[in-house]
Amino acid sequence: MISFMNDYSEGAHPRVYAMLMKTALEQNTGYGLDLHSDTAREYIKKQLKRDDVDIHFIPGGTQTNLLVISSFLRPHQCVIAAKTAHVNVHETGAIEATGHKVFVMEGVDGKLTADLITEALDYHTDEHMVMPKMVYISDSTELGTVYTKAELKTLHEVCRQKGLILYMDGARLGSALTSKFNDLTMADIAELTDAFYIGGTKNGALLGEALVICKDELKEDFRYLIKQRGAMLAKGFVTGIQFEALFKDKLFYELASHANTMAEKIADALIGLGYKFYAMPCSNQLFPILPNDKLDKLAKDFLFSYQAKIDNDHSVIRLVTSWATTKEHVDRLIKAIESL
Amino acid sequence: MISFMNDYSEGAHPRVYAMLMKTALEQNTGYGLDLHSDTAREYIKKQLKRDDVDIHFIPGGTQTNLLVISSFLRPHQCVIAAKTAHVNVHETGAIEATGHKVFVMEGVDGKLTADLITEALDYHTDEHMVMPKMVYISDSTELGTVYTKAELKTLHEVCRQKGLILYMDGARLGSALTSKFNDLTMADIAELTDAFYIGGTKNGALLGEALVICKDELKEDFRYLIKQRGAMLAKGFVTGIQFEALFKDKLFYELASHANTMAEKIADALIGLGYKFYAMPCSNQLFPILPNDKLDKLAKDFLFSYQAKIDNDHSVIRLVTSWATTKEHVDRLIKAIESL
Amino acid sequence: MISFMNDYSEGAHPRVYAMLMKTALEQNTGYGLDLHSDTAREYIKKQLKRDDVDIHFIPGGTQTNLLVISSFLRPHQCVIAAKTAHVNVHETGAIEATGHKVFVMEGVDGKLTADLITEALDYHTDEHMVMPKMVYISDSTELGTVYTKAELKTLHEVCRQKGLILYMDGARLGSALTSKFNDLTMADIAELTDAFYIGGTKNGALLGEALVICKDELKEDFRYLIKQRGAMLAKGFVTGIQFEALFKDKLFYELASHANTMAEKIADALIGLGYKFYAMPCSNQLFPILPNDKLDKLAKDFLFSYQAKIDNDHSVIRLVTSWATTKEHVDRLIKAIESL
Amino acid sequence: MISFMNDYSEGAHPRVYAMLMKTALEQNTGYGLDLHSDTAREYIKKQLKRDDVDIHFIPGGTQTNLLVISSFLRPHQCVIAAKTAHVNVHETGAIEATGHKVFVMEGVDGKLTADLITEALDYHTDEHMVMPKMVYISDSTELGTVYTKAELKTLHEVCRQKGLILYMDGARLGSALTSKFNDLTMADIAELTDAFYIGGTKNGALLGEALVICKDELKEDFRYLIKQRGAMLAKGFVTGIQFEALFKDKLFYELASHANTMAEKIADALIGLGYKFYAMPCSNQLFPILPNDKLDKLAKDFLFSYQAKIDNDHSVIRLVTSWATTKEHVDRLIKAIESL
Repeated sequence: MISFMNDYSEGAHPRVYAMLMKTALEQNTGYGLDLHSDTAREYIKKQLKRDDVDIHFIPGGTQTNLLVISSFLRPHQCVIAAKTAHVNVHETGAIEATGHKVFVMEGVDGKLTADLITEALDYHTDEHMVMPKMVYISDSTELGTVYTKAELKTLHEVCRQKGLILYMDGARLGSALTSKFNDLTMADIAELTDAFYIGGTKNGALLGEALVICKDELKEDFRYLIKQRGAMLAKGFVTGIQFEALFKDKLFYELASHANTMAEKIADALIGLGYKFYAMPCSNQLFPILPNDKLDKLAKDFLFSYQAKIDNDHSVIRLVTSWATTKEHVDRLIKAIESL
Repeated sequence: MISFMNDYSEGAHPRVYAMLMKTALEQNTGYGLDLHSDTAREYIKKQLKRDDVDIHFIPGGTQTNLLVISSFLRPHQCVIAAKTAHVNVHETGAIEATGHKVFVMEGVDGKLTADLITEALDYHTDEHMVMPKMVYISDSTELGTVYTKAELKTLHEVCRQKGLILYMDGARLGSALTSKFNDLTMADIAELTDAFYIGGTKNGALLGEALVICKDELKEDFRYLIKQRGAMLAKGFVTGIQFEALFKDKLFYELASHANTMAEKIADALIGLGYKFYAMPCSNQLFPILPNDKLDKLAKDFLFSYQAKIDNDHSVIRLVTSWATTKEHVDRLIKAIESL
Repeated sequence: MISFMNDYSEGAHPRVYAMLMKTALEQNTGYGLDLHSDTAREYIKKQLKRDDVDIHFIPGGTQTNLLVISSFLRPHQCVIAAKTAHVNVHETGAIEATGHKVFVMEGVDGKLTADLITEALDYHTDEHMVMPKMVYISDSTELGTVYTKAELKTLHEVCRQKGLILYMDGARLGSALTSKFNDLTMADIAELTDAFYIGGTKNGALLGEALVICKDELKEDFRYLIKQRGAMLAKGFVTGIQFEALFKDKLFYELASHANTMAEKIADALIGLGYKFYAMPCSNQLFPILPNDKLDKLAKDFLFSYQAKIDNDHSVIRLVTSWATTKEHVDRLIKAIESL
Repeated sequence: MISFMNDYSEGAHPRVYAMLMKTALEQNTGYGLDLHSDTAREYIKKQLKRDDVDIHFIPGGTQTNLLVISSFLRPHQCVIAAKTAHVNVHETGAIEATGHKVFVMEGVDGKLTADLITEALDYHTDEHMVMPKMVYISDSTELGTVYTKAELKTLHEVCRQKGLILYMDGARLGSALTSKFNDLTMADIAELTDAFYIGGTKNGALLGEALVICKDELKEDFRYLIKQRGAMLAKGFVTGIQFEALFKDKLFYELASHANTMAEKIADALIGLGYKFYAMPCSNQLFPILPNDKLDKLAKDFLFSYQAKIDNDHSVIRLVTSWATTKEHVDRLIKAIESL
């Protein structure tokens, strides 16, 4: 079986392992206060073209999301998200477990728009309802689409005007930034959001996400909150070292770019065969629509996930490529699809 | 500087790295449902001499504690702990953040006794007070002491009689089980507690704790709760593989035993020099009492932490050894202490 | 101005006050353990035709809802509700503040159906999503509609099959039970739900809701949970005495019936004038659709609330009658509507 | 049986009832936005000699405490309290249920001191521990003692210097302010604390506490938080009207003063008979120490509560007087004690 289930099937990229091995016997300060984490922070700040951000390394994405949302909001405030948002669907109520409602809008291709945000605000009239105070977006989205700079600027502007915190879940930020539809840089994102995270887990690290807090008011006491939610690893340097490896040179972008290239090959083949997509192929997650009988055949040799039923005969599946996806595996998948 | 600050300064043991490297490009199922995690579970179950336990790998100790306590208790129930307990002092209110009071008793050398538990129960009379439902102990304790089998049996018995859940924090269980004062096996612990965890972070892994749930009623839906608290790593196999390495053979015990041996050498030297201890030296954490002026000198070449003030001239410090502590470092420390 | 804003504008019914005054100087046990509360419980149990329920008097409806939901569910479980549900819209995220997601389905006239519940269950596939464990309905609903016995039986049946707790918010249960569309008795509700509450605040009491827990497993330690959420009044007898007054004879039903009769007169007049309704008039809340210019005129002499915009020229308003609504006020409203 | 169990055994004072009855059929705005609540706010503000405070009427004391503490603190912050504090002992973990640790200091006669607060701050060193941010005191205290102006000024000063919020639980503020040991006015309290509440439940109302928020930063969105915790009564005017009655003239003080006078008579009799007290008699709660055999006799005709065991033969009991305690009952108690 060859898996296109997700981008977290394999361990870490060899250069990440190499950095971990090289530093194995150093005596580091604990809890993310070590020199490697600091170096990684410096590397990332260079990408952001600014120095006045706080960067924290968190073990995983759900934890980063719940930590950010519960730390930035007061108890009566909620976060606005697209209906497809990871925080709404796939975190077992992690946000609600910290006390906050996720207020969902239908979304357009997995994305929020300024109009949707305004509509959400208008709906909430007084103290008998929660107060929207934050906007959650993901880039790339849960449907593999990406935000353009113009779109993000519009969201930034509506959030600024309405006093909302704009937070971007970047579990697959690498894939977004290396998409051929992307015109954002990491520096743009640091300018246009109040906080975001750079996903390591799904882009070549064993684990770890780099949370960037851009807005001063949101920085205070954040390490207390990390510790309280159980997100402060004793060996914090383990994630620091990995981000050091990813950002020392262009590895982070190279890995994501590879995943996108692999996905693009698959998408092109599917398009060539006349298949439609549930959401436009933009990054390393593809959502093609195929007949169920062909999917049954495909499932004999390949692992992938079912996303939704289209009609009695067709389904949307999700195919995911990663930094570790080989050209050979992709070719075999394409050949299999062609011969369905 | 040579650090005796803690047992999580270094990366992982070479055999742990080797296992990670060897499996780097395998395609694993996510979220702890992979074959390596299963193998590690089997290895651990052999140690426990039973098969009917659930084993979950959790990134860190605070997270394991908050997850266990918040999952096992109903909202009005509290956990009884010694005043020195990690959950009481050093988790930034992680337990309370999940809604539960930590009810503390003074403790004896960092340990709870049946009498203390009974006293805590007697204090709570009706629905105007929280209801004690769980007992939290740690082995080795936060003062480096260890529970004997007789002591643990007594706790087990009082908990059984009173309907309390007995939970053991085993962040340093390796060090406890290889202490010369220990007469417990891991199988004993699985028999005498309702849940406990086997610490990996502080015994040679990059990260990870193996939570063992022994009691059937406590197992239900636990994966939901892991996910909700952000404790389910996408690459769950990363912790699974490390425990596979630690328990494939005796590595887990060897590493802990080494740490204890290193600590014992230091303790013997201190005792030989007539120094007293704040708590009896039993495991890899030592709490000697030294004059402040001597500590100032020692601090020039060695890292350690201050635990408490004894009087104006004396302090308790904490010296910690680990699987990675070298004999050479220990010798240099002893020499330094001798020449103070 | 005459108010049709809600059914909690006035104080208590004279017979409720009389009972309070009569008992003013008695020395009662605190916290709901007094004899008046016990008598009220007996009266209510007679209505339920069973003795094996627990009845707790809670100050208000939001508090009852948050208490019930947070007490009955484990952290990873959610409650299914109609989109219009009070717990979803108008409780400022009270349920989420206790850690639980409210999973909403579109609803039919403010009601849930067995199909909607099954659909909600099917949507939730594994531990990455919350687990539905409870169904929240209200009778009468937030749109003034009422459940029939057949409908409630179907909900009961699907909940029983799927292991879901069925909870009914009865803030306006009096109005539901005395609706001409109703064929349920309070005894039916006790048989077909696992818990429900009988609203006092909106039916003639100063404050207070009688929570009835029908299912044995849900009763345990409930007084602890009441206390913990701040819902246990020191002078618990204050709510007990009021329910004693409401249920000593038929007062509870008389008051609700009066409110319905007043509403029916208004509804009949509106229907006679050709106005349409947003939801069928069934109880003491009416949702007629009127032209905006006429509403502006009406608003000069009458208080009511805007529910929704229908189109640029029409709106849905909410008109509410109560035990205290006078025939004279109703006549004046009807006359005013006729002359619009 | 004559009860000296507590000060919430009886209903409301006749003038409170009269005000409720008089306004029974008025149509009021809901949720505390009515004119009676506003009038009550004005009356109270006159007592405070300032206009720039927010006043909210909350059903009960535990609810007020949990609401205040959870609204004012961020998740990682804790409240410092005396070990005897109501929030620590008798609220079933209500504060922890909102996520916050109650950090207790031993206390002196139920009171905190500046030194104790400083000690608590010094103990908390970094982000591995909760951050103290609030101080909870009660006046009168849970031991019946009262704060002097000098004491409160000292607490105010240390809180100001250390950036701590000072909050006073005034469940029995009436009794404190009319104690012969008191030199504080309500205006002093508004000046020296950041928030406090004026207890109605234990001083002649059916229910209700008036929360006064003095500090501007703490006022924002508070009505959202009241609603979210279920503390916003639909008929908010019910508590507003009662505080109108209590503060229209001197009723609030008269009732408390009566309770104190009754307590003083009992205390004088006990002192005259040579009995000792567990805490100095200052207000309407007395804590005399009596031999157990005499208590057994006393318990045949009088209700009171046992506070603590002194030795095998002696216990501390709690005797409480209220606005409704009659001189005749007091005389009978004294006579009974004299004849023990």
